Amino acid sequence: VTTSGVSAATIEKGNYRHFMQKEIFEQPTVVAQTLRSYIRPLEQQVALPQMDFDLRDIKRITIVACGTSYYAGMVAKYWFETFARVPVDLDFASEFRYRDPVFEPGGLALFISQSGETADTLAALRHSKENGQKIAVVVNVPTSSMAREADLLLPTHAGPEIGVASTKAFSCQLAVLAALAAHLAVVKGQMTRDEEREVVEHLTEAPAALNAALAHDDDIADMAHLIAPARDVLYLGRGPDYPLALEGALKLKEISYIHAEGYASGEMKHGPIALIDEAVPVIVLAPSGPLFEKTVSNMQEVRARGGKVVLISDAEGLVEAGEGCMATIEMPKVHPLIAPLVYAVPVQLLAYHVAVAKGTDVDQPRNLAKSVTVE
Amino acid sequence: VTTSGVSAATIEKGNYRHFMQKEIFEQPTVVAQTLRSYIRPLEQQVALPQMDFDLRDIKRITIVACGTSYYAGMVAKYWFETFARVPVDLDFASEFRYRDPVFEPGGLALFISQSGETADTLAALRHSKENGQKIAVVVNVPTSSMAREADLLLPTHAGPEIGVASTKAFSCQLAVLAALAAHLAVVKGQMTRDEEREVVEHLTEAPAALNAALAHDDDIADMAHLIAPARDVLYLGRGPDYPLALEGALKLKEISYIHAEGYASGEMKHGPIALIDEAVPVIVLAPSGPLFEKTVSNMQEVRARGGKVVLISDAEGLVEAGEGCMATIEMPKVHPLIAPLVYAVPVQLLAYHVAVAKGTDVDQPRNLAKSVTVE
Repeated sequence: VTTSGVSAATIEKGNYRHFMQKEIFEQPTVVAQTLRSYIRPLEQQVALPQMDFDLRDIKRITIVACGTSYYAGMVAKYWFETFARVPVDLDFASEFRYRDPVFEPGGLALFISQSGETADTLAALRHSKENGQKIAVVVNVPTSSMAREADLLLPTHAGPEIGVASTKAFSCQLAVLAALAAHLAVVKGQMTRDEEREVVEHLTEAPAALNAALAHDDDIADMAHLIAPARDVLYLGRGPDYPLALEGALKLKEISYIHAEGYASGEMKHGPIALIDEAVPVIVLAPSGPLFEKTVSNMQEVRARGGKVVLISDAEGLVEAGEGCMATIEMPKVHPLIAPLVYAVPVQLLAYHVAVAKGTDVDQPRNLAKSVTVE
Repeated sequence: VTTSGVSAATIEKGNYRHFMQKEIFEQPTVVAQTLRSYIRPLEQQVALPQMDFDLRDIKRITIVACGTSYYAGMVAKYWFETFARVPVDLDFASEFRYRDPVFEPGGLALFISQSGETADTLAALRHSKENGQKIAVVVNVPTSSMAREADLLLPTHAGPEIGVASTKAFSCQLAVLAALAAHLAVVKGQMTRDEEREVVEHLTEAPAALNAALAHDDDIADMAHLIAPARDVLYLGRGPDYPLALEGALKLKEISYIHAEGYASGEMKHGPIALIDEAVPVIVLAPSGPLFEKTVSNMQEVRARGGKVVLISDAEGLVEAGEGCMATIEMPKVHPLIAPLVYAVPVQLLAYHVAVAKGTDVDQPRNLAKSVTVE
């Protein structure tokens, strides 16, 4: 790294202390920018780039990715199955390559990567192509190998991501995947024109909801000292909040070196609850809604065993279950389709402020590289 | 608990200090006992109980379970796909119920549970039945609700399991699932009569291989003090060893209260490697074979960052990569189909001896119940 490079980087951070922080705050802008390519505002329709095959013929989708992109894929699995009723297989790229997967005719293989160069993901893409699958990619670098080899290129417009821990690339991936889920639902006859209009409306509201989530930055900074001394943390969520719990845990691992682990809330009592004592904070992601009550009961199991809970929910959820928590973080109440985008913000900010409190190198965490181009 | 109950329990432990230890050592016997119901020794064939549907018609399998049984299901996914070329979906019962899964015609839903009463799994079974799926269950209690509601009942003959942390039920589940995978492969035309004979031979060797694994009990007891002081542990594996890594981590969590986490080896560099320092031992499960070299390279990444490695492999693997490890555990060299059964033994023994070294209550770990009959 040359001196001029460092000062250029410093300038680019603007008023932010770290690239990661800047990139977290860019999310309303870059998500709006990304969605503009996928929405026809006048028609209130979702639109995808040209492709040389018919999405109606797709019977199954196989999603393959690594790290944070894999968690975006996990959220997409819920969406594709719920909205479009298309079954989804999901695999880590490093596992998919070696497990001799069954490729079915009419399959679409979808790869997600910020850089478009992740070695395991790229190898999995080529393997799927050789086996007759249609290839869709969600990438942030449109000149990347994956972008060039796609049958259907779905770019994210997050701009260059400098922080090693991915933030804005993740939320832009989610925005693209939500649009794809809606479009797939329409062509599969699972979503009416009116429902599509409603989805487009919700997607259009996403940047404002992200801003509302970011407005809680100070609250999160204030409570970071409650998490910073912990050596271990559990993150819980159900449904589409389960991948968010995994992503929240990954962020904490990456930049604060706290051993955080994400768990499906309902799995807690099958083992991990043995870990719970007053030294292991449990962070619960639970927007109000049909799954809320179940998650609250898992939360009460934690508290009955002396565990300290941080609840991230909307106003309604906090009124119902916030009492007795070590801390709460309020999120705007949003449609389930954009909730994962919105809930990404507090898990990113929490990891960020905990890392700052601990004094770790936020933008260049130890042992990690931005793009993993070796297997 | 009455005094007579306690003394009865003491007697039943025989020469063992804990039920869990007794149950680990019973595995060669109960696996042999279980396999006897699934193998015709004269014909050298796999045989399943009667069922009222034709396995040849099954196009997909959905496996649903919780906790340790879920990890048995993860191993089975590899087997069903590799041997029978039947694609498999896998889900936690607590997630499956609420995510409105797509049920396809001709689907077999397979539920795995020691008790046959696990609330979330039972609810998922009933939901699948209502949606026209054929129901197969692998259970240890043949009078349980799940057993009664099955179209295809696949009992394990592990005998009563008293230790809260499941051990012998898990290896018996694996034995049944291996037999089912082989039978499915035969009826699907993916396995010849000669190959089936070979599989039966390997399955028949499983009890002896389990005994060979148990013979390393003293070595494992001797090295447990290296893990006991750790607060955090990572467990790594690839392919069918990935679920074993998750199971190894779960066992450590359950009875030693160490925060152990299982990871697919190839995912390490996408985040968790940031956790690595000399205080976080990394336990690697890697039989020699085609995936060995990749896992060794992940192991070297760990060591290059000051991490201490425990390698569990066969003699060949230990010669190739054992040098420089904090400790090694030698397993017999076995066929990939029975390797997961054999590698279950050292992860169980390691958790057991670490818990004994720490003085925790092995058979009644804090916060846990044997069967989770609430949601």
